[in-house]
Amino acid sequence: MTSPFDHPWLGGLFGDQEAADIWAPQRTIAHMLAFEAAYTWALGKVGKIDETLADQVAQQIAAFKPDIADLRDGAARDGVVVPALVTQLETVIKPNTDSIHTGTTSQDVIDTALALTLRDFSDLLDVRLAALTSAFDVLADRFGDRPMMGRTRMQAALPIKVSDRLVTWSQPLAAHRKRLASLRPEVARLQLGGAAGDRAALAPNAAQISREMAAELGLQNPPTAWHSMRADIADYANLLSLISGALGKFGQDICLMAQQGVDEVTLKSGGGSSAMPHKQNPILAELLVTLARFNATQVSGMHHALIHEQERSGAAWALEWMILPQMAQATARSLSAATQLCEKITSIGKQ
Amino acid sequence: MTSPFDHPWLGGLFGDQEAADIWAPQRTIAHMLAFEAAYTWALGKVGKIDETLADQVAQQIAAFKPDIADLRDGAARDGVVVPALVTQLETVIKPNTDSIHTGTTSQDVIDTALALTLRDFSDLLDVRLAALTSAFDVLADRFGDRPMMGRTRMQAALPIKVSDRLVTWSQPLAAHRKRLASLRPEVARLQLGGAAGDRAALAPNAAQISREMAAELGLQNPPTAWHSMRADIADYANLLSLISGALGKFGQDICLMAQQGVDEVTLKSGGGSSAMPHKQNPILAELLVTLARFNATQVSGMHHALIHEQERSGAAWALEWMILPQMAQATARSLSAATQLCEKITSIGKQ
Amino acid sequence: MTSPFDHPWLGGLFGDQEAADIWAPQRTIAHMLAFEAAYTWALGKVGKIDETLADQVAQQIAAFKPDIADLRDGAARDGVVVPALVTQLETVIKPNTDSIHTGTTSQDVIDTALALTLRDFSDLLDVRLAALTSAFDVLADRFGDRPMMGRTRMQAALPIKVSDRLVTWSQPLAAHRKRLASLRPEVARLQLGGAAGDRAALAPNAAQISREMAAELGLQNPPTAWHSMRADIADYANLLSLISGALGKFGQDICLMAQQGVDEVTLKSGGGSSAMPHKQNPILAELLVTLARFNATQVSGMHHALIHEQERSGAAWALEWMILPQMAQATARSLSAATQLCEKITSIGKQ
Amino acid sequence: MTSPFDHPWLGGLFGDQEAADIWAPQRTIAHMLAFEAAYTWALGKVGKIDETLADQVAQQIAAFKPDIADLRDGAARDGVVVPALVTQLETVIKPNTDSIHTGTTSQDVIDTALALTLRDFSDLLDVRLAALTSAFDVLADRFGDRPMMGRTRMQAALPIKVSDRLVTWSQPLAAHRKRLASLRPEVARLQLGGAAGDRAALAPNAAQISREMAAELGLQNPPTAWHSMRADIADYANLLSLISGALGKFGQDICLMAQQGVDEVTLKSGGGSSAMPHKQNPILAELLVTLARFNATQVSGMHHALIHEQERSGAAWALEWMILPQMAQATARSLSAATQLCEKITSIGKQ
Repeated sequence: MTSPFDHPWLGGLFGDQEAADIWAPQRTIAHMLAFEAAYTWALGKVGKIDETLADQVAQQIAAFKPDIADLRDGAARDGVVVPALVTQLETVIKPNTDSIHTGTTSQDVIDTALALTLRDFSDLLDVRLAALTSAFDVLADRFGDRPMMGRTRMQAALPIKVSDRLVTWSQPLAAHRKRLASLRPEVARLQLGGAAGDRAALAPNAAQISREMAAELGLQNPPTAWHSMRADIADYANLLSLISGALGKFGQDICLMAQQGVDEVTLKSGGGSSAMPHKQNPILAELLVTLARFNATQVSGMHHALIHEQERSGAAWALEWMILPQMAQATARSLSAATQLCEKITSIGKQ
Repeated sequence: MTSPFDHPWLGGLFGDQEAADIWAPQRTIAHMLAFEAAYTWALGKVGKIDETLADQVAQQIAAFKPDIADLRDGAARDGVVVPALVTQLETVIKPNTDSIHTGTTSQDVIDTALALTLRDFSDLLDVRLAALTSAFDVLADRFGDRPMMGRTRMQAALPIKVSDRLVTWSQPLAAHRKRLASLRPEVARLQLGGAAGDRAALAPNAAQISREMAAELGLQNPPTAWHSMRADIADYANLLSLISGALGKFGQDICLMAQQGVDEVTLKSGGGSSAMPHKQNPILAELLVTLARFNATQVSGMHHALIHEQERSGAAWALEWMILPQMAQATARSLSAATQLCEKITSIGKQ
Repeated sequence: MTSPFDHPWLGGLFGDQEAADIWAPQRTIAHMLAFEAAYTWALGKVGKIDETLADQVAQQIAAFKPDIADLRDGAARDGVVVPALVTQLETVIKPNTDSIHTGTTSQDVIDTALALTLRDFSDLLDVRLAALTSAFDVLADRFGDRPMMGRTRMQAALPIKVSDRLVTWSQPLAAHRKRLASLRPEVARLQLGGAAGDRAALAPNAAQISREMAAELGLQNPPTAWHSMRADIADYANLLSLISGALGKFGQDICLMAQQGVDEVTLKSGGGSSAMPHKQNPILAELLVTLARFNATQVSGMHHALIHEQERSGAAWALEWMILPQMAQATARSLSAATQLCEKITSIGKQ
Repeated sequence: MTSPFDHPWLGGLFGDQEAADIWAPQRTIAHMLAFEAAYTWALGKVGKIDETLADQVAQQIAAFKPDIADLRDGAARDGVVVPALVTQLETVIKPNTDSIHTGTTSQDVIDTALALTLRDFSDLLDVRLAALTSAFDVLADRFGDRPMMGRTRMQAALPIKVSDRLVTWSQPLAAHRKRLASLRPEVARLQLGGAAGDRAALAPNAAQISREMAAELGLQNPPTAWHSMRADIADYANLLSLISGALGKFGQDICLMAQQGVDEVTLKSGGGSSAMPHKQNPILAELLVTLARFNATQVSGMHHALIHEQERSGAAWALEWMILPQMAQATARSLSAATQLCEKITSIGKQ
């Protein structure tokens, strides 16, 4: 439990249940099995195996409940979980082992499962971005016309309106939604390459299998495997950090506005102190800064993972596993914390 | 001369003259003066000052040759170069000092100069991406059908075709060009906000002044100032690192292919060794890896700079100055080095 | 379960039970209660409260089992867990609430708990570094005199001995143990500052209380609070990444040596592939590279956290919580994986 | 001129002449020639070549003025400057070409030159750390006893003394000087390995040559080459960032203290604004934050460079060239800016 997102008590601050559900291991298993089922089903559809058998095996796959302890041993042994998962599946559907997985490879399963996760997570992001936009709109309606001091280089500059400050928090969200809409189909894509990525074992039905699977899974159908070209994944990480970075600015601004002597914002309630009962710490605002700096740090690792050597890099790929889910959680929490913070604001600017 | 890009001899390896020209200080001065001239000209156009005077002063500004030593003193004193530049300009155009700069602020000048630089640099990037795509196409024509070993997790997997490897180098370039086309108008934008960013001093002509200036400068005309919303700048940095990252994969692959015992690529010539005359070091391929890791490191700093507090953050803004020009240089050099490396390849795969 | 260290199956690859135990939440609670107990006990010792009462309350504290769900609510509300923990304790020891915590603050509790964790973790690191050194010694004894090709810039250079390569893996470990010995007392230090860090509420007994507590807890006794000076914590993070970085070099070397055509190392067994039964992937070697790049990425965040504003930065401090435990886990796993990898090596160099 | 340190006007803010001199290319050339001269001289001393000839050639080397344009071509061609430099030297000292360089390699020259640079730079750091300590002592003498508000989590907490704040700026400097004293001999070391790093070509005089050279150059004499074990270099980078990080806290605190409404510090003068003549921007304080975040970003790249594959990594090594000199400049400037800032402080706390 070293992760702040899943920690028994820090999780109260950093955790985000909806995001956690989307990235939950059981959900990943469901996605991996969905890939395997769709593959078997597509093999039937294109006539590689008997269609009735295919449907029946696909249903068995979809209903399968894996032995997690064995998966853990497998991941430790093989560096990826898929060989163990496939072996477990084979035990169930024997003697029809050729009807599953053969022709694909571990990365097809895992990267497609990631694509399904990112598709679902993008929905959450979009909803959250919209909700936060509304929360900022409410603030604008209530306080936008009030005067406040504009501050440049941390010094009082000239008076502005509260709405001038608000626009710098709110306006980026619309651009982020546009980015998300444009990037979503680039990551919500089927990955299908086979052992060396060239779909050789699927010939001559590769294109058809890919098309059928993508449709079945609700994913885009790219013309080739993409598993060693990670730009879209890194681009998604960039978007996550752009979002949390924009909210980090909001958080930093609120921290500065809440200072005694500055007094530009009033919060309904803040964090208590064990030593000073009079304090109202702006902990959600601080959290936004923390999450922004966390993601700004992590995005670097995702870019290092672009150097994905040859047909598959075990080292670079696994670096993504360590970083991307946490960036997603941080971003989701950043959005929920920002919305909560808006709701705590009882006043901005001068009355 | 601590920068590898401008270093007397390391510049031979890391430097890129075309990129250096675009980011050169004299070019920046020209852009800053272009902003000031366009502003004065627009003040005339909207009737804030006499139009004939405006035209005349704008011409004086455009022709102005600043005293660089004084600008240096000014930057040291004020943290930005603009106050010193404006004072120099005022000496020349006195007594019409109200006809210049008044109503804008330092960040308007510097960020608009950056916008002009990014516009020009985007052109270079696009040309370079196209040239590299062609270079990969040549390799595909010559060697694409040859067999080579597919390698996953740094182990021999199954035979593939050279074109399968080539596609993982070449295909991302098309996507990067698309990204660039989409991002270019977001960064090639006029910045006009005035002292506190709200264009208050330009009322009631703010929108018209902005429109005239943008047209004159060949930039987009955003509805508001954007100087404290840095997402597009960070997004551009992300794109730079996506490009160098993709080329880092190419470089790493070539390094691996050039190993004795692997022998999947032959290079026309490589770097010499002071100790081993027999060696042909794949220095351009190594350089691509270095530049990719450099940019992957820097992109983090650009994301930290998103936390741009209040109406203007001196600290976060200056962090961009330290990082973005170098990322641009690294990316440009990465593209030229990749194209040079393609030209050095005399064979890929098995004959 | 977004963390690879705690993940149901990825934990098989990334997880390290001994490290996890040291950083476990229940261990953190024990450390926090140890702080509170030692404080109460020291208050008795210096005569601030009745000594018998102090001993009795200290025992109650040490035996206390907190309500975790309530701690979670508290962390969400206050940004730190301590106010909720203290409130729970007060319920138990009432009416003697002045005998606990009063005079200290949340950061005293949490940073001292961290000090206790780092003390224990340093022991583990040292044992692991010694074990790995021995494992390299075994390899040197078995294979050190064999010839192998020295490779520079990824090209064959001149023949060396296996021991020449081995020394570059093993020698850094001795230096890391020296660093650890020197850094350990700097992080295994009591933190005691009180509300604003100046120990004002402990006057005139501050020095004595601090001395007693440090002795009781087995920690160093610094002359002042250190909570807003984070250099030693960042330095510790640096050491973690130096260690994993050195092992990343080992891992990268093994990956390169294990390539077909290079064949400089033989591994007893490797990771299986779901698509290619013939493959033996060097997954532990890859893992070392992944963990090295993970820590190299994270160390940056720990350095950003040095900018710890004023008497306490909620934002910078919480960034450490997100990063340091993961760096520690990555380093521990890096050491265990390196030792396992040594044990898998059945041959290096030419026979 | 993309580097802020060498930029015509930004150099006024970011540049540091003393640091620039230590890292100047001409100084690097002098160090490289010092290596070559010491090597030739040592060859004479151990009897590998005629001692009189050795002395004479060593003097020729030391007095040599290289053709920089040719070095630039060489660096572009070979990835390192040394082959070109040696060829130039050979032209001068022919026919005695065996008396120079033979037996060493490029990395010996460049890493030893770095060692000499770091030795000199460490002297500068130590002087600067001492000067800044004195500057803080002056502030403590003048203002230490004054009251000011202690602030935690960006909220007013309880009153403290100015000296309590000052200690958090000043105390880390002593620890940094200790770190520097301990790390200095680890980086100010001769690098001597020869082509593959095993000193094979120097047998049987390797140890003696190394000893003589180290003494001549004023460097430590390590028992083996260290060029592929980069921990000490990364550790040095860590120290640089610890220093700038500590000063980043100082800078951030001053920015916060200088806010209108907080008014805890008065500065003699600040940066002027082109739009608001009344402003006094705390630009040196902001600069400290910028430089701290710059180094916190860069330190990550230095840790990635630890993965220095095999006997020499062209890619990882060159990454250090891109980053370390800039980190050094940033740190030196950070120290000079902090001292200047102290001198600008005319009041801290309440009178």
